[in-house]
Amino acid sequence: MDLPHPFESDGDTLHEECGVFGAIALDDAAATTALGLHALQHRGQEAAGLVSFDGQEFYARRGLGHVVENFSAAEDIAQLPGSMAAGHVRYSTTGGSGLRNVQPLYAELAAGGFAVAHNGNISNSLHLRRDLVKNGAIFQSTSDTEVIIHLVATSRYPSTLERLVDALRLVEGAYALIVMTPNGMIACRDPLGVRPLVMGRMGDGYVFASESVALDVIGAEFEREVDPGEMIEITLDGKMKSHRPFIAQNPRPCIFEHVYFSRPDSVFAGRSVYEARKEIGVELAREKPVEADLVIPVPDSGVPAAIGYAQESGIPFELGIIRSHYVGRTFIQPGDANRHSSVKRKHNANRRLVEGKRIVLIDDSIVRGTTSLKIVQMMRDAGAKEVHFRVASPPTAHSCYYGVDTPERSKLLAAQMEVEPMREFIHADSLAFISIDGLYRAVGAEKRNNACPQFCDACFSGDYPTTLTDATDREDPQLSLPVGKVA
Amino acid sequence: MDLPHPFESDGDTLHEECGVFGAIALDDAAATTALGLHALQHRGQEAAGLVSFDGQEFYARRGLGHVVENFSAAEDIAQLPGSMAAGHVRYSTTGGSGLRNVQPLYAELAAGGFAVAHNGNISNSLHLRRDLVKNGAIFQSTSDTEVIIHLVATSRYPSTLERLVDALRLVEGAYALIVMTPNGMIACRDPLGVRPLVMGRMGDGYVFASESVALDVIGAEFEREVDPGEMIEITLDGKMKSHRPFIAQNPRPCIFEHVYFSRPDSVFAGRSVYEARKEIGVELAREKPVEADLVIPVPDSGVPAAIGYAQESGIPFELGIIRSHYVGRTFIQPGDANRHSSVKRKHNANRRLVEGKRIVLIDDSIVRGTTSLKIVQMMRDAGAKEVHFRVASPPTAHSCYYGVDTPERSKLLAAQMEVEPMREFIHADSLAFISIDGLYRAVGAEKRNNACPQFCDACFSGDYPTTLTDATDREDPQLSLPVGKVA
Amino acid sequence: MDLPHPFESDGDTLHEECGVFGAIALDDAAATTALGLHALQHRGQEAAGLVSFDGQEFYARRGLGHVVENFSAAEDIAQLPGSMAAGHVRYSTTGGSGLRNVQPLYAELAAGGFAVAHNGNISNSLHLRRDLVKNGAIFQSTSDTEVIIHLVATSRYPSTLERLVDALRLVEGAYALIVMTPNGMIACRDPLGVRPLVMGRMGDGYVFASESVALDVIGAEFEREVDPGEMIEITLDGKMKSHRPFIAQNPRPCIFEHVYFSRPDSVFAGRSVYEARKEIGVELAREKPVEADLVIPVPDSGVPAAIGYAQESGIPFELGIIRSHYVGRTFIQPGDANRHSSVKRKHNANRRLVEGKRIVLIDDSIVRGTTSLKIVQMMRDAGAKEVHFRVASPPTAHSCYYGVDTPERSKLLAAQMEVEPMREFIHADSLAFISIDGLYRAVGAEKRNNACPQFCDACFSGDYPTTLTDATDREDPQLSLPVGKVA
Amino acid sequence: MDLPHPFESDGDTLHEECGVFGAIALDDAAATTALGLHALQHRGQEAAGLVSFDGQEFYARRGLGHVVENFSAAEDIAQLPGSMAAGHVRYSTTGGSGLRNVQPLYAELAAGGFAVAHNGNISNSLHLRRDLVKNGAIFQSTSDTEVIIHLVATSRYPSTLERLVDALRLVEGAYALIVMTPNGMIACRDPLGVRPLVMGRMGDGYVFASESVALDVIGAEFEREVDPGEMIEITLDGKMKSHRPFIAQNPRPCIFEHVYFSRPDSVFAGRSVYEARKEIGVELAREKPVEADLVIPVPDSGVPAAIGYAQESGIPFELGIIRSHYVGRTFIQPGDANRHSSVKRKHNANRRLVEGKRIVLIDDSIVRGTTSLKIVQMMRDAGAKEVHFRVASPPTAHSCYYGVDTPERSKLLAAQMEVEPMREFIHADSLAFISIDGLYRAVGAEKRNNACPQFCDACFSGDYPTTLTDATDREDPQLSLPVGKVA
Repeated sequence: MDLPHPFESDGDTLHEECGVFGAIALDDAAATTALGLHALQHRGQEAAGLVSFDGQEFYARRGLGHVVENFSAAEDIAQLPGSMAAGHVRYSTTGGSGLRNVQPLYAELAAGGFAVAHNGNISNSLHLRRDLVKNGAIFQSTSDTEVIIHLVATSRYPSTLERLVDALRLVEGAYALIVMTPNGMIACRDPLGVRPLVMGRMGDGYVFASESVALDVIGAEFEREVDPGEMIEITLDGKMKSHRPFIAQNPRPCIFEHVYFSRPDSVFAGRSVYEARKEIGVELAREKPVEADLVIPVPDSGVPAAIGYAQESGIPFELGIIRSHYVGRTFIQPGDANRHSSVKRKHNANRRLVEGKRIVLIDDSIVRGTTSLKIVQMMRDAGAKEVHFRVASPPTAHSCYYGVDTPERSKLLAAQMEVEPMREFIHADSLAFISIDGLYRAVGAEKRNNACPQFCDACFSGDYPTTLTDATDREDPQLSLPVGKVA
Repeated sequence: MDLPHPFESDGDTLHEECGVFGAIALDDAAATTALGLHALQHRGQEAAGLVSFDGQEFYARRGLGHVVENFSAAEDIAQLPGSMAAGHVRYSTTGGSGLRNVQPLYAELAAGGFAVAHNGNISNSLHLRRDLVKNGAIFQSTSDTEVIIHLVATSRYPSTLERLVDALRLVEGAYALIVMTPNGMIACRDPLGVRPLVMGRMGDGYVFASESVALDVIGAEFEREVDPGEMIEITLDGKMKSHRPFIAQNPRPCIFEHVYFSRPDSVFAGRSVYEARKEIGVELAREKPVEADLVIPVPDSGVPAAIGYAQESGIPFELGIIRSHYVGRTFIQPGDANRHSSVKRKHNANRRLVEGKRIVLIDDSIVRGTTSLKIVQMMRDAGAKEVHFRVASPPTAHSCYYGVDTPERSKLLAAQMEVEPMREFIHADSLAFISIDGLYRAVGAEKRNNACPQFCDACFSGDYPTTLTDATDREDPQLSLPVGKVA
Repeated sequence: MDLPHPFESDGDTLHEECGVFGAIALDDAAATTALGLHALQHRGQEAAGLVSFDGQEFYARRGLGHVVENFSAAEDIAQLPGSMAAGHVRYSTTGGSGLRNVQPLYAELAAGGFAVAHNGNISNSLHLRRDLVKNGAIFQSTSDTEVIIHLVATSRYPSTLERLVDALRLVEGAYALIVMTPNGMIACRDPLGVRPLVMGRMGDGYVFASESVALDVIGAEFEREVDPGEMIEITLDGKMKSHRPFIAQNPRPCIFEHVYFSRPDSVFAGRSVYEARKEIGVELAREKPVEADLVIPVPDSGVPAAIGYAQESGIPFELGIIRSHYVGRTFIQPGDANRHSSVKRKHNANRRLVEGKRIVLIDDSIVRGTTSLKIVQMMRDAGAKEVHFRVASPPTAHSCYYGVDTPERSKLLAAQMEVEPMREFIHADSLAFISIDGLYRAVGAEKRNNACPQFCDACFSGDYPTTLTDATDREDPQLSLPVGKVA
Repeated sequence: MDLPHPFESDGDTLHEECGVFGAIALDDAAATTALGLHALQHRGQEAAGLVSFDGQEFYARRGLGHVVENFSAAEDIAQLPGSMAAGHVRYSTTGGSGLRNVQPLYAELAAGGFAVAHNGNISNSLHLRRDLVKNGAIFQSTSDTEVIIHLVATSRYPSTLERLVDALRLVEGAYALIVMTPNGMIACRDPLGVRPLVMGRMGDGYVFASESVALDVIGAEFEREVDPGEMIEITLDGKMKSHRPFIAQNPRPCIFEHVYFSRPDSVFAGRSVYEARKEIGVELAREKPVEADLVIPVPDSGVPAAIGYAQESGIPFELGIIRSHYVGRTFIQPGDANRHSSVKRKHNANRRLVEGKRIVLIDDSIVRGTTSLKIVQMMRDAGAKEVHFRVASPPTAHSCYYGVDTPERSKLLAAQMEVEPMREFIHADSLAFISIDGLYRAVGAEKRNNACPQFCDACFSGDYPTTLTDATDREDPQLSLPVGKVA
């Protein structure tokens, strides 16, 4: 099976916004980081950056496009010397002006160089930015991450570590950070642990990554997850120290990492993602059974749940939709091409298989619903007799403010209507979602603890685990970012 | 499921060398052709070309890389006006010098422009070339296809159609051709029908494509296959005429199109490719059963056979290997990375699933065996207790001379050893291939008719359906192509 | 002083179409050729090509733009190994399709590789091309030079040298050629010697170049001009043989090489170009004196004649027009910019010098007259009291068919009107041209021998030294070249 | 004549570091600025930038290379809307990391956008930077100009104008600045007026430029120089106000603008640059006469002085050295090329003219002396009997700290030896420089007023008009700039 979502340019999917990777006390820190980032490519395909430190100087390179386009050549890596490196992959809007937002961000502070790679979202960054600018700070980017650097630069604490703690205490939202200073690397995760971050060992050195699969690919040993609220410091010569400078809270890791974001060969919150997804399929088959001839995944992300559904229901699993690797930009449409060809470039019905059959389609989620509609229609055009749609997550009815690119709430199909109108909208014979408790069971909990939920499931429940300062105070004109074309 | 083989840069797979597409009597001929070529991208990823004709002039564009990189933008298509167009995707060696070999080839003949796109291989092209050059012909490329043009240019027959017949009678080997002249399009297939070619209708116009999936994607109706030895002529205003100018022979379509080359959602030689592949898995489970816990495909091409194997054997189908979309060029290897990381960039073991299990791996073929070895080792490293390898084709022991890029015979593992030493070589607990009769059964025959085989299976059997003039006469120094760097 | 005309994109100048260079029996043939071509850059700025031969294979590289952009880097030159090389700079229309016309042209003939670089123009090439195509020849380019290759390829003579003679006997027009075969280099000049070609020695090797300055720049010794109608053959190991296979004619070297094309530090037809130009100024001062305060050259090509005019007349030479190096593509014009800013980007009046003065402007020629008009106006705007225009060549009233890019005759100002209306057109107080006999005196003859002119001066006299087959037979539709966009 | 120094890549010339241009209250502000910058291209060829403001937003584009490569196309200009724009051309070290130093620099301050283009050098920028960083400022570039922005951002004054005055009072050195804020444009010049800045009118709008020639080229009227210490404010609707916020000082404009930097068609400090240079030649002929046959300029910058020398001495002015336009990167040198070919690519002897003659070479200055040596040798190789070298400036014995890129003092030939050893070093028959009083006379003064010099002539005299804080305090390690490769 393939990894999820290489390019989904039609705005009808959720996008993880970032992946981070760091390596320290390793001879080939930059090459290791490049390979690790490559394994995290599915978390951000628009740009990649890498910063290294050789004991004297910092070196940085960034580029639009994939890791392989920017960091696979020996000459690229040769320009990133040293035994410490960190990198970042990013999903972002395209365009030349994007380059200044490509992370790791870097600044020369009074105490020396400071680089930071961030996965997550700071939900009060506009407020912090406004106050910093009033005091003379000059921002280089429109990235929320940059407020962390300015907060560190202007903190009154003596050491960089204390300044970073000072900065993060002012910050609200979700973050998994990898920071580099001339003394070493600091990896930390917000007190709720919304976004993932794992630690591995490689010889005498350490590596950090957004997902465990990156450790597999580079050949490192998985050590453990960085704990929510933990700040791990590694010196240049490989000494490790763990700090817990924040007030302890109940963790709320993002449940959608299991549903969609993480690679199926990653382990998240102690559980195999593949297993969780297959189990979601099993739960779904129990909760929402249907009589049919074939179980068909919407490739690729629907595959594990479809296997689970098929195994539990006894209906055969078949590839009724074939997906092309060679997607990317939109083609100019010939006038005679039929209405669904943009979907067909990616997904094509396996007509001979589907003809005359009752099918169960399994997809990971419904966002706007436009793709689901096209896929149902494609199956009917191919001769399917009945099309039953089963979704491996509860209805997505709320926006994410913690680092996932969701459409505005008003564009989410589930924010506008109940399940039955949704079924009508996508023209399915039946439509059903896994229940929220079913989802919790599939990922290993008994059920959702509503008093103190075990995960962040705000996109389904609307139950946001932090305040959302910027979002609730959007009217202040001073909070708007410059929208000019200054690169 | 995804399509087979986006990039396999390690030389351990077989490569289809080309795909062709043509459109005539269509308002958006070039846009339609671009989209059709895109659906054939898996047949050739190194270069793409497109030629159009607007009733007055021919227009051509070619580029290295994918169709989407060269022909998706409106401004690219705007430079290819007219209601007739043909295109080609090519697998070839990289490098700047390649551009002159990118098809469709085009020449100004005395009767006007002449463009040709070719899938296949002319097995006496070096002999023909030598004779043409002796008579003053000047070749632009090192492509075998160019001999067809020179044979047409120097033929003594009056009309272009007759000149083309004259030329093809001198040609030995396999070809599916799309030709454009100022009068219209000619599509034809060699008398054995080794390489595929289908015809479709779109409004009042016609389209031709290497595989039926291209018709689905552009929204055309499948009409029928072009018959072996048939030459179909379509005038600019859409009149169709069929010619059969060659001596009739028993068809021998390439059986490997079923095993590997064609997209699973194509229909080839009257049979769904997906169905054929699944049936191969079923046959394999009957012929070569084994006790195990999981059936695991080597993604992506092994998936349908694995589904068939699982259904027949009752052993659960599971994704034990996760494949990354984001492959491409080789990364510089960090010194500490373990020995299998180059495979791991593409394929990663789903460790939690595999640990402690007896697994059956299903792959489409074994070429050199090096990838198979790495994958078996990867599964063992991930904790698999037993690794049984099942191959969805008979041993590949002979080179192809009909348009598939195979290693020299001496590099084919099955040309060097029997099955048991192969098993040792790849370190599997057991190894088995489908039988040649099993394969024939799976694709719809009762068994192989050895007196008059229904398919070309020379890569398995060594039974080549044509003479191989160049290959048997390699010593003639005048037959060698120039190897300089003249672009 | 600077060299003439780096970019004159407004069509109001004459353009040399090519420069050629060859080196044989030299260790660094390609590097020497690149440097030699660079010294000939003023003869063609649009594209450059280089072919080398290492005793086994030919290697070729071509590119749009200047020599320095394509052939200055060590890695470019490393791809052109061997002790024989030839190169070409070309003035041509821009655009991607141009690349196939970039010389040296190369073909694989039955006797081996054949490369040719050509300066000049074949005035019956369309007729020859039509006949070759009728016999099955396939042309790669729209270059007139390619007919030479096809004539060689289809000649019935046994040796390549004899085939080349056979081909050139069929050719009408002007050519200075450098040919490479696996046996060595052949340099030759048409029987009239219209276009220049010189030979130099460098160690044990030989070099050929369009102008002697290329020999100075690479550090070679000037040996002699290649004679009109001479064909010089040099073997790979440096043996030289001279052939004179054509019927002897009185030479007619292009007199415009003295007026404008050649670099002033070149020696052409036995005379220093700088000296000739200065002498033209002296003659002009004698023939067409005027009372004035300053002699001002139109830079850069008018400078030597202006020095001569000033020395002869006693009027001081001054830089009243300053020229910018940084020209090139046209800028978008701000609406408020005054009407002459496109000229001003190149030429700006030295206002403080010119104000209130009577000036004599010296330019090399008047083509369409539009630039002359703008320059006269610019001097008036800067305050000049009187503007007298003196031209260092006779009126240009006829097109060139021998390798110089002239506008159609109807666009030549001197083809439309006498001198007095031309004066009115450019708004000068007086206008005068050197006489044709004055020009002949300046370049070293006593006067023009009208019975048997010593130079080709057809652009002034209309006296063409060859027949002009294509030009007199333009109506034949079969003579037109394809104008599509086939690259 | 051509403009000075398009590319002098051998480090043996002085380089102006920048040119600035601004336009306000003009419909086509960006197009006008692009054309104006193009006229200033000789002041900086490595990079160019342009910022515009449309009343709402700022827009910026920057690029390595020439103005024409980045700002000539309609689509480039279309991205820079608005009626106010400023631009900058820069001489700098090459490389990707350079882009962040390309001006105008831009920042979002609390009061809105702030852009600045600077010609000059701040001689205490490292001290200022250190203090700003200590207080939490984060620098984006290594440009000295950025300290101005941070000083403005952190100033305690209320208005941007006052903040800018506050900032510039802390700054030491030379500057001609163009600043843009949402309210309009501010142009100002340091109290000594070291670097030039002129003001022009164009319809109802204003333009500012480093040199008057830019006004000629865009078709604006020259209004006056911006006075030393003057700050001119223009509102968006074209209202002008002049401020003089600094303590008055005696002006010290850079005398080298007359000798070399400015275009000869510019007017600087009230005097035509061409006239000044010719007058230098006249003075030089009087002070340092010699018996000779020809006066030969080292092109192009030596031409006006050579004309003056020739007119005063009566010795004929001749082009004994021909310069190629087509320079640029270094070519790989063929082994057989003689030792001076790198000079020969740029300068070639006009051998026929020079042979057997006694010549006077006129050059603008001697920096390291290596080029002078090669040129003298080239003239001897061409057969010159005697070579007399005359220099149009006094010996350059001191580095510049005000915006000109000079080699370290130890590399300046005149810092190491007297005139007679210099003559020996360059192998001339005689060598003489203009005296400092001669130079002052030529530019219009009676003589140098040693108590209060009329110009900055520190490169000749070592008499620096400001303190040089950074240069005298280099040891402080905190003053060093980061030298890593952080782009």
